[in-house]
Amino acid sequence: MSSTIHVDLGDRSYPIVIGSGLLDGGFDLAEFVHGSDCMVVSNETVAPLYYEKLLPNLSGCDVASVNLPDGEAYKTVSTMQTIIDGLVETGANRDTTVIALGGGVVGDIAGFAAACYLRGVNFIQVPTTLLAQVDSSVGGKTGVNHEKGKNLIGAFHQPQVVLIDTATLATLPDRELKAGLAEVIKHGAICDAGFFAWLEENMEELLQRNPEALVHAIRRSCEIKAEVVAADEREGGRRAVLNFGHTFGHAIEHCQGYGQWLHGEAVAAGMVMAAKLSGLPAGDVERLANLLASAGLPVEPPPIGADGWLGAMGLDKKVQGKKLRFVLLDAIGDSHVTADYDQGRLDEVIRR
Amino acid sequence: MSSTIHVDLGDRSYPIVIGSGLLDGGFDLAEFVHGSDCMVVSNETVAPLYYEKLLPNLSGCDVASVNLPDGEAYKTVSTMQTIIDGLVETGANRDTTVIALGGGVVGDIAGFAAACYLRGVNFIQVPTTLLAQVDSSVGGKTGVNHEKGKNLIGAFHQPQVVLIDTATLATLPDRELKAGLAEVIKHGAICDAGFFAWLEENMEELLQRNPEALVHAIRRSCEIKAEVVAADEREGGRRAVLNFGHTFGHAIEHCQGYGQWLHGEAVAAGMVMAAKLSGLPAGDVERLANLLASAGLPVEPPPIGADGWLGAMGLDKKVQGKKLRFVLLDAIGDSHVTADYDQGRLDEVIRR
Repeated sequence: MSSTIHVDLGDRSYPIVIGSGLLDGGFDLAEFVHGSDCMVVSNETVAPLYYEKLLPNLSGCDVASVNLPDGEAYKTVSTMQTIIDGLVETGANRDTTVIALGGGVVGDIAGFAAACYLRGVNFIQVPTTLLAQVDSSVGGKTGVNHEKGKNLIGAFHQPQVVLIDTATLATLPDRELKAGLAEVIKHGAICDAGFFAWLEENMEELLQRNPEALVHAIRRSCEIKAEVVAADEREGGRRAVLNFGHTFGHAIEHCQGYGQWLHGEAVAAGMVMAAKLSGLPAGDVERLANLLASAGLPVEPPPIGADGWLGAMGLDKKVQGKKLRFVLLDAIGDSHVTADYDQGRLDEVIRR
Repeated sequence: MSSTIHVDLGDRSYPIVIGSGLLDGGFDLAEFVHGSDCMVVSNETVAPLYYEKLLPNLSGCDVASVNLPDGEAYKTVSTMQTIIDGLVETGANRDTTVIALGGGVVGDIAGFAAACYLRGVNFIQVPTTLLAQVDSSVGGKTGVNHEKGKNLIGAFHQPQVVLIDTATLATLPDRELKAGLAEVIKHGAICDAGFFAWLEENMEELLQRNPEALVHAIRRSCEIKAEVVAADEREGGRRAVLNFGHTFGHAIEHCQGYGQWLHGEAVAAGMVMAAKLSGLPAGDVERLANLLASAGLPVEPPPIGADGWLGAMGLDKKVQGKKLRFVLLDAIGDSHVTADYDQGRLDEVIRR
């Protein structure tokens, strides 16, 4: 059993296929490998769990592989180059396909390598973490971090297909499951009040890893993200709502050192700050904080200090014309991007 | 006096403006800088000659600059990162514009940095060598070398405008002028027998740097390249004819170490080899070799050995399905790309 979401991007359109048990040959991925050569990029944690299970999905292909060290700290140009080195060593040509098997870090680095190798080769995402399944594997953003900021170096490079086997979540550590739920909650908060309410009702099921609940949450998240991306692929405007909580969240990650706070944890605390900056009724801010807390996520940032916040945010990609831009909520399920925010309220939020 | 060629690529279309004396404020480049910030990327050789002359063309802009070491040996990911570092240090945002002032190496690295920084910022080319003016600045190919091959890492990233001031050729060393003429001759050989004949008549004028002859040769070269690129931006097919002589040429550069032979010199010898592989009448091969020789270019490759050739060419980007693809001439001025070449003739060409 699987269901498919179509990401509508003209000649860069692609399907997201979601189901439980799609690895072990449950889905013919080889159909999306245009030549016969592919390079599976994974990491030292995920490869022992799922690499062998992926192979039956690539029947008839010549499969090479490269494993990266695990962790956000390795999301660098240098790690990207190890993938390029692997492609060069195998003599990979323009018909080769890079397949990312792992979480968001693996997907972002592998996608960037695919974007750059010979100025762009085909790419497939097989995300194995909740965060990657609901967020980073969809939409074509790839890239690596710079020591001064996250994702400062990268490319838009859409995959040929995203294959989501929810069975891979069985081995996901609790903390990472919760971090992924932050982005699921984000999708409800910015676009869909009904989905937000469903999450309030079903958070316990999700934490218990009820398969049906997980498939529903992942599917609805991917649908929301696919709609937003189809309307604005290169983030000229609307797509930026997907960054709700991320301006504050990136600042947290930057100030704490990447990897101390998981991305989803930083975004969770960032979303509560952004909701306060939005001037939402206190009851709505509380609903958001309660839902995040029920998912086991932090709702308060670490002590960073006002200067720390502003310095870190001054480098944020969402700055345009040297004025900060924020995603604000008009209500639960409704959001917009603006540089016209209440400065006093921002001071309050970062000084509290 | 200037003339403009339009590169027709839909929403990525841009003008190439050609004239003598366009620097020193002769052309309003600021109009193409969409925000006010720009970063001029040049090198230690070109910047002292032309950086100050470029500034009056950027009136009203906030201009930062970064200078790279000079030479193909520095066309690396690491050098690209120094540009990224400069952009990060100045807090450059998505509205920033990267301006390449220099030859092909500067343009390729700066363009790749512009493609990757924040997943793509605006880019302007101000080529100051003949090679860059007639070839590398037009068409959107950017990238850097890998130790195992040229341009293996890069992106397609079209500029907003290409500004060609032919007066900059006054300071170009003779050897580089000649290397640039190799690509001019290539454009005649693959697409325009009339232009090829004009070059035979006017080579002495070009070597004497007659301004009118140079403007004509540059203009016609850019027109030919713009037409080919407009028909096939990402080199799915026809664009590959621009690689005439390059499969052999890249192998020469690879085996001799980048920088020993200039790119244009390697392509010159490579074109004669490709013409022989094409099975052209001996008289036509001779016409090509004579024209290249009259431009002071090599028409024989260095001693590489058959294994050296095949090894180096096995990594070439134009390999598809592990079969070599070559650009062959049907006649002077007419060319096609094919994997269906005469194997015996190839052996002869590389073993001679």
